Amino acid sequence: MAQRYVISGATAATMEETVGNYGLVENAAIVIEDDKISWVGAAADLPPEFTSLERKDLAGRVVTPGLIDCHTHIVHGGNRAREFEMRLNGASYEEVARAGGGIVSTVSATRGASETDLLASALPRADALIAQGVSVIEVKSGYGLDRDTELKMLRVARALGQHRPVRVVTSFLGAHAVPAGADADTYIDTVCLPTLEAAHAEGLVDAVDGFCEGIAFDTAQIARVFDKARALGLPVKLHAEQLSHIGGTELAAKYAALSADHVEYATESDAAALAAAGTVAVLLPGAFYTIHETQAPPVQAFREHGVPMAVGTDWNPGSSPLGSLLLAMNMACTLFRMTPAEALAGTTRNAARALGLADCGSIAPGMRADLAIWDISDPAELSYGIGINPLHSRIFGGVA
Amino acid sequence: MAQRYVISGATAATMEETVGNYGLVENAAIVIEDDKISWVGAAADLPPEFTSLERKDLAGRVVTPGLIDCHTHIVHGGNRAREFEMRLNGASYEEVARAGGGIVSTVSATRGASETDLLASALPRADALIAQGVSVIEVKSGYGLDRDTELKMLRVARALGQHRPVRVVTSFLGAHAVPAGADADTYIDTVCLPTLEAAHAEGLVDAVDGFCEGIAFDTAQIARVFDKARALGLPVKLHAEQLSHIGGTELAAKYAALSADHVEYATESDAAALAAAGTVAVLLPGAFYTIHETQAPPVQAFREHGVPMAVGTDWNPGSSPLGSLLLAMNMACTLFRMTPAEALAGTTRNAARALGLADCGSIAPGMRADLAIWDISDPAELSYGIGINPLHSRIFGGVA
Ligand SMILES: [Zn+2]
Ligand SMILES: [Zn+2]
Repeated sequence: MAQRYVISGATAATMEETVGNYGLVENAAIVIEDDKISWVGAAADLPPEFTSLERKDLAGRVVTPGLIDCHTHIVHGGNRAREFEMRLNGASYEEVARAGGGIVSTVSATRGASETDLLASALPRADALIAQGVSVIEVKSGYGLDRDTELKMLRVARALGQHRPVRVVTSFLGAHAVPAGADADTYIDTVCLPTLEAAHAEGLVDAVDGFCEGIAFDTAQIARVFDKARALGLPVKLHAEQLSHIGGTELAAKYAALSADHVEYATESDAAALAAAGTVAVLLPGAFYTIHETQAPPVQAFREHGVPMAVGTDWNPGSSPLGSLLLAMNMACTLFRMTPAEALAGTTRNAARALGLADCGSIAPGMRADLAIWDISDPAELSYGIGINPLHSRIFGGVA
Repeated sequence: MAQRYVISGATAATMEETVGNYGLVENAAIVIEDDKISWVGAAADLPPEFTSLERKDLAGRVVTPGLIDCHTHIVHGGNRAREFEMRLNGASYEEVARAGGGIVSTVSATRGASETDLLASALPRADALIAQGVSVIEVKSGYGLDRDTELKMLRVARALGQHRPVRVVTSFLGAHAVPAGADADTYIDTVCLPTLEAAHAEGLVDAVDGFCEGIAFDTAQIARVFDKARALGLPVKLHAEQLSHIGGTELAAKYAALSADHVEYATESDAAALAAAGTVAVLLPGAFYTIHETQAPPVQAFREHGVPMAVGTDWNPGSSPLGSLLLAMNMACTLFRMTPAEALAGTTRNAARALGLADCGSIAPGMRADLAIWDISDPAELSYGIGINPLHSRIFGGVA
């Protein structure tokens, strides 16, 4: 479906790094050829070879790169509303656990769900993100903790991208939690690593992730997972320093990870290590908000050291049942004091980088024509509104 | 359009006070005749005279009363995204004010907007609420602070209810802020009270509201507004104890107000006064969240004293650009530790009471057939999800 057209009458937030801030172009034109952007700039400067192309006038709307949710767990069985309610009615964690709550309940529901059921429940989640201008969704495994379920989750993640006009990037998260009754080291060696190999052989893995925390895996265990990833030629990322400081961020930097995620308890020297490694700090305010965390990530240190910051939903049934990337942007501003321009870079340019994608996240020649068009006049409105979705329309791979 | 039909196959959260909690009826049937509910109960108990009526099967979905947003400022000109961005970029309040920010900018934009423009900008806000199952929206004036603009805002509020299938309840909020350069007492006497009379004469006022705060009006000034309301036979409500404790809640109780709103700084004795007066405490977590307030309203005292609690968006361009009543429910749970059942009572039964409406807010014989039908299996899911909208469909005045 060869297509060539020009978008005009737009305020373009190109998010080009070299331009800084939003990389704003007023009265912009964007030339789209097939699934790529071939030119962007002031409409007055449109080169003669494009002036006769069909025009789509945006009537002064704002156009941004398609948004990228670089951290989700949207493939999972069940929900944890009952547990949410029990806790607010005063139940202790022990009582919740006795009632079958916690991650165990999600693992059990995910194991019990068929591939068809898992897909059916994940599709509306993907649809909700797409309806907010999202063009790329990262999806993690990690609620199987056994070979078959981890593979099933990743197959469902891939299927999302076949059923919907959205690009799905997968992360293998076998090292998400220690299965009930198991020994962590034994689980890594006998389940996690062999499952990673099997998933990779099936082409299901774009990156390898882990949860480095007192309640999950320590740095030595994560290092074994990362070594296997390296042997397979796969990039890594890590849930690090979310609840305490145990060295995950430093480990991630040592392995030149794509991203270190959460990082509320990261230090100034962690920031320096991330910057040196070129690792993105992925901030997840939905979890911070839900678990009543009070330690905010060191945004100012990230700024000073030049650590690229991304923002994701962390959409998961326990610590962040957050289904809105725009709301994550507002929370990043309100709870973490990021600026609206940083929040938008966090769901475009830096989110692409956190996924190792070089062909999306900004509006520039050669990039994929994934665009979001908004009924707003200033890109700051995307972060300012709370629970408001001003999407007008989306262009995905050049297709409106 | 006479209509008689039965909704069946539903889990009904009737929100009937006498039943407690959600007033849940599994496998429920609801009989609708014209715009009213004439029967609700277990489908097995459906009286013979209704068994031959047309059935609408909800396939196990949850049905609740239509939601009620009992505190909004959705009629206003402009937005304050630029100011939001300036502050996050480190601007002082003085710098923001010099750049024309603050409530002054909204007053100026609202004064400058035509009735047509104001309506055009408010309709998408009403639509966003309606899309979340809302059937009643309260709308306040208060960004005019002059006669013509206050009347214009209220006319636009009324027009919303003519253009959309939603019921609009208005509050006259002339005592919202002291206009720049004016004396508060003079403003009350020469502008606010005469404008209230004029608005009432035009049938534009369902209740009279005020902002009782150090930065707005004191209790003596509000009392003058309330006395005028009483003389006109209008019920009152009040923005009270949001930023400090200056006696607004006690004043509201003394005037048997429909509601006292915000009330973060209300005390135990305020709770007792509200309970004795039958005044609803309207909790507005969107503003709490946006202004980084740390003092939560005394929810436990309200519970103990039996103060009915409602929850609203407070949708306004400054302190709460929150466009989602479901998100307000989640915030009420997460930030104020309300239970999901309290949050739902807060947007149904108690929100109706905060507006003085006796014919909506629960599913019971004689009530308006305003219903929201949800793609969930447990009503707690409404408060559990963050930025997620599981609305399946809505019935408004019996019309699906
Ligand atoms: Zn995660
Ligand atoms: Zn208000």
